[in-house]
Amino acid sequence: MKRFFFFLILIPVLLHGQDDNLTQFVNPFIGTDRMGHTYPGATVPFGMVQLSPDTDTIPYETGGKYNPDVYKYCAGYQYDDKTIVGFSHTHFSGTGHSDLGDILLMPTTGKLQLNPGTAGAPEKGYRSCFSHDTEIASPGYYAVTLEDHNIRAELTATTRTGIHRYTFSEGGDAHIILDMIHGIYNYDSKNVWTFLRVENDTLVTGYRQTNGWARTRTVYFAIAFSKPVESYGFANFSPAQVYRGFWRRFDQRTDFPEAAGAKIRGHFDFSTVPGEQITVRVALSPVSTAGAVDNLISEAPTSDFASVREAARLTWEKELGRVRVKMMNRDQTVNFYTALYHAFLSPTVYSDTDNGYKGLDQNTHYAEGFDNYTTFSLWDTYRALHPLFTVIQQKRTADIVNSMLAHYDQSVHNMLPVWSHYANENWCMIGYHAVPVIADAIVKKIPGFDYGRALEACVTTARNGWYDGLDDYMRLGYVTDERTGSSVSVTLEYAYDDWCIAQADGVLREKLFNSDTSLAGEFLRRSQNYRNVWDASTGFMRPRLADGGFRKEFDVLSTHGQGFIEGNAWNYSLYVPQDPEGMISLMGGRKRFVEHLDSLFTMDLPDSYFAETEDITREGIIGNYVHGNEPSHHVPYLFNYAGEPRKTQYRVRQIMDAKYLPAPDGLSGNDDCGQMSAWYIFSALGFYPVAPGSDRYDLGSPLVKEAVINLENGKSFSVSAVNQGPGNVYVKKVELNGQKLDRLWIKHDEIMQGGHLVFYMK
Amino acid sequence: MKRFFFFLILIPVLLHGQDDNLTQFVNPFIGTDRMGHTYPGATVPFGMVQLSPDTDTIPYETGGKYNPDVYKYCAGYQYDDKTIVGFSHTHFSGTGHSDLGDILLMPTTGKLQLNPGTAGAPEKGYRSCFSHDTEIASPGYYAVTLEDHNIRAELTATTRTGIHRYTFSEGGDAHIILDMIHGIYNYDSKNVWTFLRVENDTLVTGYRQTNGWARTRTVYFAIAFSKPVESYGFANFSPAQVYRGFWRRFDQRTDFPEAAGAKIRGHFDFSTVPGEQITVRVALSPVSTAGAVDNLISEAPTSDFASVREAARLTWEKELGRVRVKMMNRDQTVNFYTALYHAFLSPTVYSDTDNGYKGLDQNTHYAEGFDNYTTFSLWDTYRALHPLFTVIQQKRTADIVNSMLAHYDQSVHNMLPVWSHYANENWCMIGYHAVPVIADAIVKKIPGFDYGRALEACVTTARNGWYDGLDDYMRLGYVTDERTGSSVSVTLEYAYDDWCIAQADGVLREKLFNSDTSLAGEFLRRSQNYRNVWDASTGFMRPRLADGGFRKEFDVLSTHGQGFIEGNAWNYSLYVPQDPEGMISLMGGRKRFVEHLDSLFTMDLPDSYFAETEDITREGIIGNYVHGNEPSHHVPYLFNYAGEPRKTQYRVRQIMDAKYLPAPDGLSGNDDCGQMSAWYIFSALGFYPVAPGSDRYDLGSPLVKEAVINLENGKSFSVSAVNQGPGNVYVKKVELNGQKLDRLWIKHDEIMQGGHLVFYMK
Repeated sequence: MKRFFFFLILIPVLLHGQDDNLTQFVNPFIGTDRMGHTYPGATVPFGMVQLSPDTDTIPYETGGKYNPDVYKYCAGYQYDDKTIVGFSHTHFSGTGHSDLGDILLMPTTGKLQLNPGTAGAPEKGYRSCFSHDTEIASPGYYAVTLEDHNIRAELTATTRTGIHRYTFSEGGDAHIILDMIHGIYNYDSKNVWTFLRVENDTLVTGYRQTNGWARTRTVYFAIAFSKPVESYGFANFSPAQVYRGFWRRFDQRTDFPEAAGAKIRGHFDFSTVPGEQITVRVALSPVSTAGAVDNLISEAPTSDFASVREAARLTWEKELGRVRVKMMNRDQTVNFYTALYHAFLSPTVYSDTDNGYKGLDQNTHYAEGFDNYTTFSLWDTYRALHPLFTVIQQKRTADIVNSMLAHYDQSVHNMLPVWSHYANENWCMIGYHAVPVIADAIVKKIPGFDYGRALEACVTTARNGWYDGLDDYMRLGYVTDERTGSSVSVTLEYAYDDWCIAQADGVLREKLFNSDTSLAGEFLRRSQNYRNVWDASTGFMRPRLADGGFRKEFDVLSTHGQGFIEGNAWNYSLYVPQDPEGMISLMGGRKRFVEHLDSLFTMDLPDSYFAETEDITREGIIGNYVHGNEPSHHVPYLFNYAGEPRKTQYRVRQIMDAKYLPAPDGLSGNDDCGQMSAWYIFSALGFYPVAPGSDRYDLGSPLVKEAVINLENGKSFSVSAVNQGPGNVYVKKVELNGQKLDRLWIKHDEIMQGGHLVFYMK
Repeated sequence: MKRFFFFLILIPVLLHGQDDNLTQFVNPFIGTDRMGHTYPGATVPFGMVQLSPDTDTIPYETGGKYNPDVYKYCAGYQYDDKTIVGFSHTHFSGTGHSDLGDILLMPTTGKLQLNPGTAGAPEKGYRSCFSHDTEIASPGYYAVTLEDHNIRAELTATTRTGIHRYTFSEGGDAHIILDMIHGIYNYDSKNVWTFLRVENDTLVTGYRQTNGWARTRTVYFAIAFSKPVESYGFANFSPAQVYRGFWRRFDQRTDFPEAAGAKIRGHFDFSTVPGEQITVRVALSPVSTAGAVDNLISEAPTSDFASVREAARLTWEKELGRVRVKMMNRDQTVNFYTALYHAFLSPTVYSDTDNGYKGLDQNTHYAEGFDNYTTFSLWDTYRALHPLFTVIQQKRTADIVNSMLAHYDQSVHNMLPVWSHYANENWCMIGYHAVPVIADAIVKKIPGFDYGRALEACVTTARNGWYDGLDDYMRLGYVTDERTGSSVSVTLEYAYDDWCIAQADGVLREKLFNSDTSLAGEFLRRSQNYRNVWDASTGFMRPRLADGGFRKEFDVLSTHGQGFIEGNAWNYSLYVPQDPEGMISLMGGRKRFVEHLDSLFTMDLPDSYFAETEDITREGIIGNYVHGNEPSHHVPYLFNYAGEPRKTQYRVRQIMDAKYLPAPDGLSGNDDCGQMSAWYIFSALGFYPVAPGSDRYDLGSPLVKEAVINLENGKSFSVSAVNQGPGNVYVKKVELNGQKLDRLWIKHDEIMQGGHLVFYMK
């Protein structure tokens, strides 16, 4: 009891010093080198606008051949690059494929150039050299000096607007280039249409329509200049249109207030005096240019850059303040808050200030009673990011579920989102992992959405026979190797997703919601389908043929062509989060399982297996355990289920220490819209959701010395690690609210009720 | 007084027999051969949908070279053709350039073919041979037998929907092809994007986005089948998209409910028994597929083809009943009501049933207090079509003006429409002829729009210096030859348009509306600018150079390169409708003018001048007077101003007799959205608006024996021609309401008050 009071009083004191300056610990450059695929630019939490520098213009294909270098540019920025092409307004954070990079602005001086130039010869285009010495990046703010033009460029943002402030140090002829061709991936080839209107001498509107990862995507914009444009012009870089007839009567290239075509670049010209600043406000909209103008007026009505920057910072302070930690050193604090920062970038708001948004059916809808979100990288984020949101972003969790249900209502496929962005389903990766997100929210009783309707959407999604082998799966109990090259991964993930439906159904029946009582049985049976791809002869999950036999050729180390996706048999065979005990038993019992798991972390993976994939580097791997990709994220916690919690404790600390470094190249794999970061946040706090859809978090080994989670219900849940130290990775004892905990997990409700979790380390 | 009562009683009796069957006199095939550019398909008055057969697929260019044959296909149909490609839902009536032909459906049997085939080898595609023997066309209804497939196809329409009924005579495998590539002009090359969703087994939605005459045009649609689709599929005929990634997992070609790409054709398959009918309802929307579905539900909620057909017929009866005539013979009656039919096709409704429409700024707007219209072929229609509407379509005139004002509000150029369609300004032809339409409506006191706002829009439009030489014109009093090849035509038409502004201003001041009193002076001065291109040395209007001199090379007979557009110096030099007396004086007085005008009609135009233009045929010409194009439409009435009304009477009867024939090739030039037809209607009634913007109609020689104009104010105005006969073209005396008329014109108010105009013929 004495200790109980100690923490009640002391923790707030201990953590108070950081109260109003958590943003100092965020380093947006973490992950911008090599595999992290993060961007350093300005954005607010879950903002529609991600205003960030793009450092190259590599096309997805050259002469019809995939260009492997493009992969580095998923977020537009690579830390090693020496030039900046410009600042575009939309970026994914941490994805392994891309799109976006819309509406690029670039300030220049001197001779007007309408092509971007190349990294090797930046002087031949509008791009500029830059140095990291002049760069500043902090939550909601980015600045850099564009050396070729002697311009200081600063960026900040609101939810739906990006604000640029350009200081023209030398003055003279200035141009602001508006490149509507520029984009990330498929550079120069994915534009379908662009439209531009110079509404008056300080306001420009338009849209960019693309056919990329999102098949049919349109971004509408409104651009306001703080100073009247003196002259302007356009060029259309697409082949001449067939019939232009009477348009030829006007010179549309110069000072003609409207342009449209597949590939347009524009320029806006100003005379400047030395040191003059021009502020440019850019609002986006998913609906219309009118929506963009409304967003501009609502969110950035004036050109007061400093105020917007400060508001962005304060918004970040508030969001980061949801978890206050004391770590062992500043590097860890930086890692933690940068992870929290990255976790709060996606999904992104996708509606105007009037709640209008473009739906999957390409019609305009209005979000009633919720904020609409997009960018659902669900194969990644269902694992830890959305569970994290069930703890510290409950309001947004309901918004996200409602957004998914709207997607479902608009889906002609009767599907919840798989990987969706900007009113498009891109079908990336496998499974139907909106289901675990929704089931987790139901099981954890997150308020704010219709549970019955949500469960119905899950069930309908899971019964869509046409989808990726689901008919096989429902008929045979597994997806056949003939059907897809990822048949084992798909089978395992369907089984897990199905278990989530059963869990949600169980909760709803308990609460007397209107739910089909036969559902739990159906989906619990389906959740055991993982057994159907288990090959006892090899001890691995293995591709199975339509005739019931296993495929002959089988390489358990290769990531390619072995029935898995983004993982090999070693890693993926452990993907039974819904039934670890069943899996352990299948694999020969606890002892053999632990030996197997140890081997995963200690074996020496031959070099040849690294060359075959673009996602994984040596740095992302421990033995054959791949942390740089998601399928194994729960694996270190599986030792708990085999009676070896110390091995879990060791491995999670090892991963936190080795795979998360406070440097541009500090992330060992794609951050994947915050999933990698969410793994770190949970693990640093000492617990992890092995199977979202349950209310259980498995205990690991905390990295924090102390932490307070400030819940939306006004309560707080604190974590302390007594005797914490770099070498003290093992947990001697755990107390919850002063009582010794005789289990290796805590329950969601125990967090939500507020309380104190104390780890005694050794 | 006795005669007065005679007509009061007798005319209704005389005309009563036609009351409920005016549609029998409409022959939609008139103008479908050669130059008329009309279409024979199904539509309702001013309908958004014009559902009509397209008989070929000639591209605008072949190998980068203009294909002159394309011109014939402005309305999609040429009477001489032997095959029908299918039935598309949008068509211009009578234009001299084109676009549209959206959303083509074609029913077929047997083997599925997704290409249209060619006229020479129809069996190699989905098109079919047909014979005029099986064709029926009447207002709101079209039918034809598709011989290659043994299908009877019938079409009808509501304002926003087209209804197809296909009778599969032999039964068996049936397909309905949905060709989203098909279009009129730029076949196969103007598609920007297409989108398609099979919402369920009887409903398909989507859109087609094109870059043609309208630069950025999207037509949304919803298609409902009366019978569930058994299977379906798509093919995208555009080059493979760069990145399709995970889409490859699904076979999108067959039974995949969604497709998008630049060039998509789909098919919907059915099994049919002999004689089975399938009805297909297609709704369009300018806004969204949701709008199209709403339109479908509102206007064609069931597949009851017969009811829709009957409703369309009744709508036409009502509209045609606005003028009831007794002609000398049935051919004239057919000509008259077909002209009235053609006059009531354009402009077209361009808003959903909820009043939503796409504006010029590409945003969705809602028409408040008016119906929104598009398809403004104003260079043609301001002359007689819109004046006709001021008499018999006053409600629509207000809607049209309000639509133009909305266009103006949305115009980044601060311009009223020039030639606009489908939320686009195509800038076709010259002048700013929304001004005479609006001024005419003000002068004639048409209720239902804001006169002050309308005049302001006219003035702003007329002061836009950047527009087509207007800066020259405002500075020098004429548009220079250096500026544009049509400098004389442009100058003359600006001068006329400017006079209209002065007239409207005059009316507004008189009525104490809030109007700038200096306007009339400014624009009356401008209206005299026609004098600045008058070359006394040749006796013609002539291109003038920036230095003030006339251009040396000058061919008064050629239509090309002489400073005019769609007319030669002989015809166009007479274009001073606002000041005939001034012009006559300039040209040497009445006597010389009459001689000159006589020459125009009697001279022998050398053959070489016919070859040079695509608009004019020998049939469209009398001497050198060109009725097949618009600039001379007022010319026959100019004899009135020179004291020779008999010559006017002779020429207008000659033109009505010779240039309007009740046959497919009966129109001597493009009907131009009803302008040619409106000329006929007015002239047949015995009066014509030489200068819209005044309240005056010049008297000619009526072709009717009797006519009653049923006005929207409940009154009626009747016309009688006593002693009418084929040879009795001269007017001995005219009485208005029983009083001898001692002038050669009547006033708009005299019509609107109701009354009786009697021509005594000899």
